[in-house]
Amino acid sequence: MRKAFVYKPSHKNLKTMKNIVIIIALTIGLVSVSFHSKNGHEKEPIIASKTITQIAVVVKDIDKARNAWAEVLGVKAPEVSIAESHFSRPTQYRGNPSDAKAKLAFFAMDNLQIELIQPLGGKSTWQEFLDKNGEGIHHIAFAVKNIDGVEKQFQLQGMPTVQNGGWDGGAYSYIDASGDLGCILELLENFK
Amino acid sequence: MRKAFVYKPSHKNLKTMKNIVIIIALTIGLVSVSFHSKNGHEKEPIIASKTITQIAVVVKDIDKARNAWAEVLGVKAPEVSIAESHFSRPTQYRGNPSDAKAKLAFFAMDNLQIELIQPLGGKSTWQEFLDKNGEGIHHIAFAVKNIDGVEKQFQLQGMPTVQNGGWDGGAYSYIDASGDLGCILELLENFK
Repeated sequence: MRKAFVYKPSHKNLKTMKNIVIIIALTIGLVSVSFHSKNGHEKEPIIASKTITQIAVVVKDIDKARNAWAEVLGVKAPEVSIAESHFSRPTQYRGNPSDAKAKLAFFAMDNLQIELIQPLGGKSTWQEFLDKNGEGIHHIAFAVKNIDGVEKQFQLQGMPTVQNGGWDGGAYSYIDASGDLGCILELLENFK
Repeated sequence: MRKAFVYKPSHKNLKTMKNIVIIIALTIGLVSVSFHSKNGHEKEPIIASKTITQIAVVVKDIDKARNAWAEVLGVKAPEVSIAESHFSRPTQYRGNPSDAKAKLAFFAMDNLQIELIQPLGGKSTWQEFLDKNGEGIHHIAFAVKNIDGVEKQFQLQGMPTVQNGGWDGGAYSYIDASGDLGCILELLENFK
Protein backbone atom coordinates (compact mmCIF):
# COMPACT_ATOMS: atom_id res chain seq x y z
CA MET A 1 0.00 0.00 0.00
CA ARG A 2 1.32 3.32 -0.94
CA LYS A 3 1.88 5.72 1.90
CA ALA A 4 -0.72 8.50 1.92
CA PHE A 5 0.67 11.95 1.25
CA VAL A 6 -0.11 14.32 4.09
CA TYR A 7 0.33 18.00 3.32
CA LYS A 8 1.86 19.85 6.25
CA PRO A 9 2.02 23.56 5.43
CA SER A 10 5.15 25.38 6.46
CA HIS A 11 5.10 29.01 7.65
CA LYS A 12 6.18 30.12 4.13
CA ASN A 13 3.43 28.13 2.48
CA LEU A 14 0.83 29.64 4.81
CA LYS A 15 1.92 33.14 3.76
CA THR A 16 1.64 32.22 0.05
CA MET A 17 -1.87 30.80 0.61
CA LYS A 18 -2.90 33.99 2.42
CA ASN A 19 -1.71 36.02 -0.58
CA ILE A 20 -3.60 33.78 -3.00
CA VAL A 21 -6.79 34.15 -0.95
CA ILE A 22 -6.37 37.96 -0.93
CA ILE A 23 -5.81 38.01 -4.71
CA ILE A 24 -8.90 35.83 -5.31
CA ALA A 25 -11.00 38.05 -3.02
CA LEU A 26 -9.80 41.20 -4.80
CA THR A 27 -10.52 39.69 -8.23
CA ILE A 28 -14.05 38.69 -7.18
CA GLY A 29 -14.54 42.19 -5.79
CA LEU A 30 -13.35 43.90 -8.96
CA VAL A 31 -15.42 41.68 -11.27
CA SER A 32 -18.48 42.26 -9.10
CA VAL A 33 -18.02 46.07 -9.10
CA SER A 34 -17.53 46.08 -12.87
CA PHE A 35 -20.63 43.87 -13.35
CA HIS A 36 -22.81 46.09 -11.18
CA SER A 37 -21.49 49.22 -12.84
CA LYS A 38 -22.32 47.76 -16.29
CA ASN A 39 -25.81 46.79 -15.12
CA GLY A 40 -26.17 50.17 -13.49
CA HIS A 41 -25.23 51.84 -16.76
CA GLU A 42 -27.86 49.86 -18.66
CA LYS A 43 -30.42 50.96 -16.09
CA GLU A 44 -29.48 54.62 -16.50
CA PRO A 45 -30.35 55.52 -20.09
CA ILE A 46 -29.60 58.95 -21.52
CA ILE A 47 -33.24 59.14 -22.59
CA ALA A 48 -35.58 57.81 -19.92
CA SER A 49 -38.75 58.05 -22.03
CA LYS A 50 -39.80 55.21 -24.36
CA THR A 51 -42.26 57.45 -26.22
CA ILE A 52 -41.50 59.26 -29.46
CA THR A 53 -43.52 62.47 -29.43
CA GLN A 54 -42.84 63.88 -32.92
CA ILE A 55 -41.57 62.95 -36.36
CA ALA A 56 -40.49 65.99 -38.35
CA VAL A 57 -40.27 66.39 -42.12
CA VAL A 58 -38.26 69.29 -43.58
CA VAL A 59 -40.00 70.63 -46.70
CA LYS A 60 -39.44 73.41 -49.23
CA ASP A 61 -43.07 74.59 -49.42
CA ILE A 62 -45.13 74.07 -46.27
CA ASP A 63 -48.41 75.03 -47.93
CA LYS A 64 -48.02 72.42 -50.65
CA ALA A 65 -46.90 69.81 -48.10
CA ARG A 66 -49.61 70.45 -45.49
CA ASN A 67 -52.32 70.25 -48.15
CA ALA A 68 -50.88 67.01 -49.55
CA TRP A 69 -50.66 65.43 -46.06
CA ALA A 70 -54.20 66.64 -45.26
CA GLU A 71 -55.52 64.97 -48.41
CA VAL A 72 -53.72 61.66 -47.75
CA LEU A 73 -54.91 61.56 -44.12
CA GLY A 74 -58.39 62.94 -44.82
CA VAL A 75 -58.09 65.78 -42.32
CA LYS A 76 -58.10 69.58 -42.37
CA ALA A 77 -54.74 71.19 -43.17
CA PRO A 78 -53.29 72.56 -39.90
CA GLU A 79 -52.45 76.22 -39.26
CA VAL A 80 -48.91 77.47 -39.88
CA SER A 81 -46.88 79.08 -37.08
CA ILE A 82 -43.45 80.71 -37.06
CA ALA A 83 -40.49 79.44 -35.01
CA GLU A 84 -37.86 82.03 -34.19
CA SER A 85 -35.35 82.91 -31.45
CA HIS A 86 -36.90 83.54 -28.02
CA PHE A 87 -35.27 85.54 -25.21
CA SER A 88 -35.82 82.70 -22.72
CA ARG A 89 -33.25 80.53 -24.59
CA PRO A 90 -31.91 82.35 -27.69
CA THR A 91 -31.32 80.11 -30.71
CA GLN A 92 -27.78 78.73 -31.03
CA TYR A 93 -26.51 76.92 -34.11
CA ARG A 94 -23.26 75.00 -33.59
CA GLY A 95 -22.49 77.14 -30.56
CA ASN A 96 -23.11 80.54 -32.17
CA PRO A 97 -26.19 82.78 -31.99
CA SER A 98 -28.52 82.31 -34.98
CA ASP A 99 -31.48 84.25 -36.33
CA ALA A 100 -32.88 81.10 -37.92
CA LYS A 101 -36.61 81.06 -38.60
CA ALA A 102 -38.97 78.40 -39.87
CA LYS A 103 -42.62 77.85 -40.68
CA LEU A 104 -44.13 74.96 -38.72
CA ALA A 105 -47.33 72.91 -39.08
CA PHE A 106 -48.43 69.98 -36.89
CA PHE A 107 -50.71 67.02 -37.62
CA ALA A 108 -52.05 65.41 -34.45
CA MET A 109 -51.93 61.66 -35.05
CA ASP A 110 -53.27 59.15 -32.52
CA ASN A 111 -49.84 58.31 -31.08
CA LEU A 112 -47.63 61.33 -31.92
CA GLN A 113 -47.36 64.51 -34.00
CA ILE A 114 -46.15 64.83 -37.58
CA GLU A 115 -44.33 68.17 -37.79
CA LEU A 116 -43.65 69.93 -41.09
CA ILE A 117 -40.79 72.45 -41.11
CA GLN A 118 -40.01 74.96 -43.86
CA PRO A 119 -36.76 76.84 -43.13
CA LEU A 120 -37.03 80.61 -43.68
CA GLY A 121 -33.36 81.61 -43.67
CA GLY A 122 -30.69 81.95 -41.00
CA LYS A 123 -28.25 79.18 -40.15
CA SER A 124 -30.13 76.12 -38.92
CA THR A 125 -30.06 72.35 -38.86
CA TRP A 126 -33.25 72.48 -40.98
CA GLN A 127 -31.58 74.47 -43.80
CA GLU A 128 -28.42 72.36 -43.51
CA PHE A 129 -30.50 69.19 -43.91
CA LEU A 130 -32.45 70.62 -46.88
CA ASP A 131 -29.21 71.69 -48.62
CA LYS A 132 -27.63 68.26 -48.09
CA ASN A 133 -30.54 65.86 -48.62
CA GLY A 134 -33.44 67.79 -50.07
CA GLU A 135 -36.82 67.21 -48.43
CA GLY A 136 -36.90 64.36 -45.92
CA ILE A 137 -37.46 63.17 -42.36
CA HIS A 138 -35.22 65.39 -40.26
CA HIS A 139 -35.61 64.07 -36.71
CA ILE A 140 -37.60 62.19 -34.12
CA ALA A 141 -38.34 63.87 -30.79
CA PHE A 142 -38.39 62.77 -27.15
CA ALA A 143 -39.73 64.66 -24.14
CA VAL A 144 -37.05 64.99 -21.44
CA LYS A 145 -36.47 66.54 -18.04
CA ASN A 146 -33.36 68.66 -17.33
CA ILE A 147 -32.68 69.27 -21.04
CA ASP A 148 -29.25 70.88 -20.40
CA GLY A 149 -28.12 67.83 -18.42
CA VAL A 150 -29.33 65.42 -21.12
CA GLU A 151 -27.50 67.51 -23.77
CA LYS A 152 -24.29 67.17 -21.73
CA GLN A 153 -24.68 63.39 -21.44
CA PHE A 154 -25.06 63.11 -25.21
CA GLN A 155 -22.01 65.37 -25.69
CA LEU A 156 -19.95 63.11 -23.38
CA GLN A 157 -20.92 60.17 -25.60
CA GLY A 158 -19.70 62.01 -28.71
CA MET A 159 -23.14 63.25 -29.84
CA PRO A 160 -22.98 67.05 -29.88
CA THR A 161 -25.79 69.60 -29.87
CA VAL A 162 -26.20 71.05 -33.35
CA GLN A 163 -28.89 73.61 -32.49
CA ASN A 164 -30.88 74.62 -29.46
CA GLY A 165 -33.35 77.26 -28.42
CA GLY A 166 -36.68 77.79 -26.76
CA TRP A 167 -40.11 79.31 -26.81
CA ASP A 168 -42.45 80.79 -24.23
CA GLY A 169 -42.60 77.88 -21.80
CA GLY A 170 -40.28 75.36 -23.37
CA ALA A 171 -36.85 74.41 -24.70
CA TYR A 172 -35.58 72.30 -27.57
CA SER A 173 -32.18 70.81 -28.47
CA TYR A 174 -31.19 68.98 -31.63
CA ILE A 175 -28.60 66.26 -31.00
CA ASP A 176 -26.46 65.25 -33.96
CA ALA A 177 -26.52 61.50 -33.33
CA SER A 178 -26.03 60.71 -37.02
CA GLY A 179 -22.68 58.99 -36.44
CA ASP A 180 -24.05 56.71 -33.72
CA LEU A 181 -27.83 56.34 -34.10
CA GLY A 182 -28.00 57.25 -37.81
CA CYS A 183 -30.19 60.34 -37.33
CA ILE A 184 -30.82 63.60 -35.52
CA LEU A 185 -32.78 63.54 -32.24
CA GLU A 186 -34.75 66.41 -30.79
CA LEU A 187 -35.08 66.82 -27.04
CA LEU A 188 -38.13 68.78 -25.86
CA GLU A 189 -38.81 70.10 -22.38
CA ASN A 190 -41.97 71.88 -21.32
CA PHE A 191 -41.59 74.09 -18.27
CA LYS A 192 -45.27 74.98 -17.88
CA MET B 1 -93.65 114.84 -59.36
CA ARG B 2 -92.02 112.25 -61.51
CA LYS B 3 -94.29 109.54 -62.87
CA ALA B 4 -93.68 106.17 -61.18
CA PHE B 5 -92.34 103.50 -63.53
CA VAL B 6 -94.54 100.43 -63.54
CA TYR B 7 -93.00 97.30 -64.98
CA LYS B 8 -95.46 95.35 -67.13
CA PRO B 9 -93.86 92.13 -68.34
CA SER B 10 -94.53 91.19 -71.96
CA HIS B 11 -94.75 87.56 -73.13
CA LYS B 12 -91.09 87.74 -74.28
CA ASN B 13 -89.93 89.07 -70.91
CA LEU B 14 -91.75 86.29 -69.07
CA LYS B 15 -89.88 83.70 -71.16
CA THR B 16 -86.52 85.39 -70.37
CA MET B 17 -87.33 85.40 -66.64
CA LYS B 18 -88.20 81.68 -66.80
CA ASN B 19 -84.80 80.99 -68.40
CA ILE B 20 -83.00 83.04 -65.73
CA VAL B 21 -84.77 81.11 -62.95
CA ILE B 22 -83.78 77.81 -64.60
CA ILE B 23 -80.14 78.93 -64.94
CA ILE B 24 -80.04 80.05 -61.26
CA ALA B 25 -81.54 76.72 -60.12
CA LEU B 26 -79.02 74.74 -62.20
CA THR B 27 -76.11 76.81 -60.83
CA ILE B 28 -77.26 76.24 -57.22
CA GLY B 29 -77.59 72.54 -57.96
CA LEU B 30 -74.09 72.26 -59.48
CA VAL B 31 -72.43 74.22 -56.67
CA SER B 32 -74.21 72.06 -54.10
CA VAL B 33 -73.15 68.80 -55.81
CA SER B 34 -69.54 70.03 -56.06
CA PHE B 35 -69.58 71.08 -52.37
CA HIS B 36 -70.85 67.71 -51.21
CA SER B 37 -68.38 65.87 -53.43
CA LYS B 38 -65.48 67.94 -52.01
CA ASN B 39 -66.62 67.17 -48.46
CA GLY B 40 -66.99 63.53 -49.39
CA HIS B 41 -63.43 63.50 -50.70
CA GLU B 42 -62.06 64.91 -47.43
CA LYS B 43 -63.85 62.13 -45.60
CA GLU B 44 -62.22 59.42 -47.73
CA PRO B 45 -58.50 59.49 -46.92
CA ILE B 46 -56.00 57.29 -48.73
CA ILE B 47 -54.71 56.20 -45.31
CA ALA B 48 -57.53 55.56 -42.87
CA SER B 49 -55.29 54.96 -39.83
CA LYS B 50 -54.05 57.85 -37.67
CA THR B 51 -51.36 55.71 -36.05
CA ILE B 52 -47.75 55.56 -37.16
CA THR B 53 -46.51 52.06 -36.42
CA GLN B 54 -42.80 52.31 -37.31
CA ILE B 55 -40.00 54.78 -37.89
CA ALA B 56 -37.13 53.25 -39.83
CA VAL B 57 -33.49 54.32 -39.90
CA VAL B 58 -31.21 53.07 -42.69
CA VAL B 59 -27.71 52.38 -41.32
CA LYS B 60 -24.39 51.07 -42.63
CA ASP B 61 -23.58 48.84 -39.65
CA ILE B 62 -26.57 47.43 -37.78
CA ASP B 63 -24.47 46.01 -34.93
CA LYS B 64 -22.90 49.37 -34.18
CA ALA B 65 -26.28 51.12 -34.48
CA ARG B 66 -28.31 48.68 -32.36
CA ASN B 67 -25.73 48.83 -29.58
CA ALA B 68 -25.67 52.65 -29.67
CA TRP B 69 -29.50 52.85 -29.57
CA ALA B 70 -29.60 50.26 -26.77
CA GLU B 71 -27.18 52.34 -24.71
CA VAL B 72 -29.09 55.61 -25.28
CA LEU B 73 -32.43 53.99 -24.38
CA GLY B 74 -31.07 51.81 -21.58
CA VAL B 75 -32.42 48.57 -23.06
CA LYS B 76 -31.01 45.31 -24.40
CA ALA B 77 -29.90 45.38 -28.02
CA PRO B 78 -32.54 43.56 -30.11
CA GLU B 79 -31.88 40.47 -32.24
CA VAL B 80 -31.08 40.87 -35.94
CA SER B 81 -33.24 39.21 -38.61
CA ILE B 82 -32.89 39.02 -42.38
CA ALA B 83 -35.45 40.45 -44.83
CA GLU B 84 -35.46 38.85 -48.28
CA SER B 85 -37.84 38.03 -51.11
CA HIS B 86 -40.72 35.71 -50.15
CA PHE B 87 -42.74 33.57 -52.59
CA SER B 88 -46.03 34.95 -51.25
CA ARG B 89 -45.22 38.38 -52.75
CA PRO B 90 -41.76 38.41 -54.39
CA THR B 91 -39.78 41.63 -53.94
CA GLN B 92 -40.19 44.18 -56.72
CA TYR B 93 -38.04 47.30 -57.03
CA ARG B 94 -39.40 49.95 -59.43
CA GLY B 95 -41.53 47.29 -61.14
CA ASN B 96 -38.76 44.70 -61.63
CA PRO B 97 -37.95 41.60 -59.57
CA SER B 98 -35.19 42.22 -57.01
CA ASP B 99 -33.04 39.97 -54.84
CA ALA B 100 -32.60 42.75 -52.29
CA LYS B 101 -31.75 41.68 -48.76
CA ALA B 102 -31.38 43.61 -45.54
CA LYS B 103 -30.59 43.06 -41.88
CA LEU B 104 -33.36 44.32 -39.57
CA ALA B 105 -33.56 45.09 -35.85
CA PHE B 106 -36.57 46.45 -33.94
CA PHE B 107 -36.79 48.46 -30.73
CA ALA B 108 -40.25 48.24 -29.13
CA MET B 109 -41.03 51.73 -27.89
CA ASP B 110 -44.19 52.54 -25.92
CA ASN B 111 -46.05 53.96 -28.93
CA LEU B 112 -44.33 52.45 -32.00
CA GLN B 113 -41.28 50.54 -33.23
CA ILE B 114 -37.90 51.95 -34.19
CA GLU B 115 -36.63 49.80 -37.07
CA LEU B 116 -32.97 49.69 -38.08
CA ILE B 117 -32.23 48.54 -41.64
CA GLN B 118 -28.82 47.63 -43.05
CA PRO B 119 -29.02 46.91 -46.81
CA LEU B 120 -27.16 43.73 -47.85
CA GLY B 121 -27.02 44.20 -51.62
CA GLY B 122 -29.56 43.90 -54.41
CA LYS B 123 -31.50 46.86 -55.78
CA SER B 124 -33.63 48.40 -53.04
CA THR B 125 -35.04 51.67 -51.76
CA TRP B 126 -32.80 51.15 -48.70
CA GLN B 127 -29.58 51.04 -50.74
CA GLU B 128 -30.79 53.90 -52.96
CA PHE B 129 -31.43 56.04 -49.85
CA LEU B 130 -28.03 55.15 -48.34
CA ASP B 131 -26.21 55.99 -51.60
CA LYS B 132 -28.02 59.34 -51.91
CA ASN B 133 -28.21 60.56 -48.30
CA GLY B 134 -25.98 58.38 -46.17
CA GLU B 135 -27.51 57.08 -42.93
CA GLY B 136 -30.87 58.62 -42.05
CA ILE B 137 -34.58 58.19 -41.37
CA HIS B 138 -35.89 56.32 -44.39
CA HIS B 139 -39.64 56.08 -43.82
CA ILE B 140 -42.60 56.07 -41.49
CA ALA B 141 -45.07 53.18 -41.64
CA PHE B 142 -48.84 52.82 -41.47
CA ALA B 143 -50.89 49.63 -41.11
CA VAL B 144 -53.47 49.36 -43.92
CA LYS B 145 -56.12 47.02 -45.27
CA ASN B 146 -56.22 46.07 -48.97
CA ILE B 147 -52.59 47.09 -49.56
CA ASP B 148 -52.81 46.70 -53.36
CA GLY B 149 -55.82 49.03 -53.48
CA VAL B 150 -54.08 51.63 -51.30
CA GLU B 151 -50.98 51.42 -53.55
CA LYS B 152 -53.21 52.13 -56.57
CA GLN B 153 -54.80 55.16 -54.89
CA PHE B 154 -51.34 56.60 -54.17
CA GLN B 155 -50.30 55.91 -57.76
CA LEU B 156 -53.38 57.79 -59.06
CA GLN B 157 -52.29 60.77 -56.94
CA GLY B 158 -48.81 60.71 -58.50
CA MET B 159 -47.12 58.81 -55.64
CA PRO B 160 -45.74 55.59 -57.16
CA THR B 161 -44.65 52.38 -55.43
CA VAL B 162 -40.85 52.22 -55.30
CA GLN B 163 -40.58 48.74 -53.78
CA ASN B 164 -42.93 46.07 -52.49
CA GLY B 165 -42.80 42.55 -51.20
CA GLY B 166 -43.98 40.31 -48.42
CA TRP B 167 -43.16 37.80 -45.75
CA ASP B 168 -44.91 34.77 -44.29
CA GLY B 169 -48.20 36.36 -43.30
CA GLY B 170 -47.76 39.94 -44.46
CA ALA B 171 -47.09 42.44 -47.21
CA TYR B 172 -45.23 45.74 -47.45
CA SER B 173 -45.13 48.55 -50.02
CA TYR B 174 -42.90 51.60 -50.06
CA ILE B 175 -44.61 54.65 -51.56
CA ASP B 176 -42.35 57.34 -52.95
CA ALA B 177 -44.27 60.34 -51.64
CA SER B 178 -41.13 62.50 -51.52
CA GLY B 179 -42.48 64.99 -54.09
CA ASP B 180 -45.77 65.52 -52.21
CA LEU B 181 -45.30 64.62 -48.53
CA GLY B 182 -41.52 65.08 -48.41
CA CYS B 183 -40.73 61.45 -47.50
CA ILE B 184 -41.22 57.76 -48.21
CA LEU B 185 -44.17 55.97 -46.59
CA GLU B 186 -44.38 52.26 -45.89
CA LEU B 187 -47.72 50.45 -46.00
CA LEU B 188 -47.93 47.27 -43.93
CA GLU B 189 -50.67 44.65 -44.02
CA ASN B 190 -50.82 41.60 -41.78
CA PHE B 191 -52.92 38.73 -43.14
CA LYS B 192 -52.70 36.53 -40.05
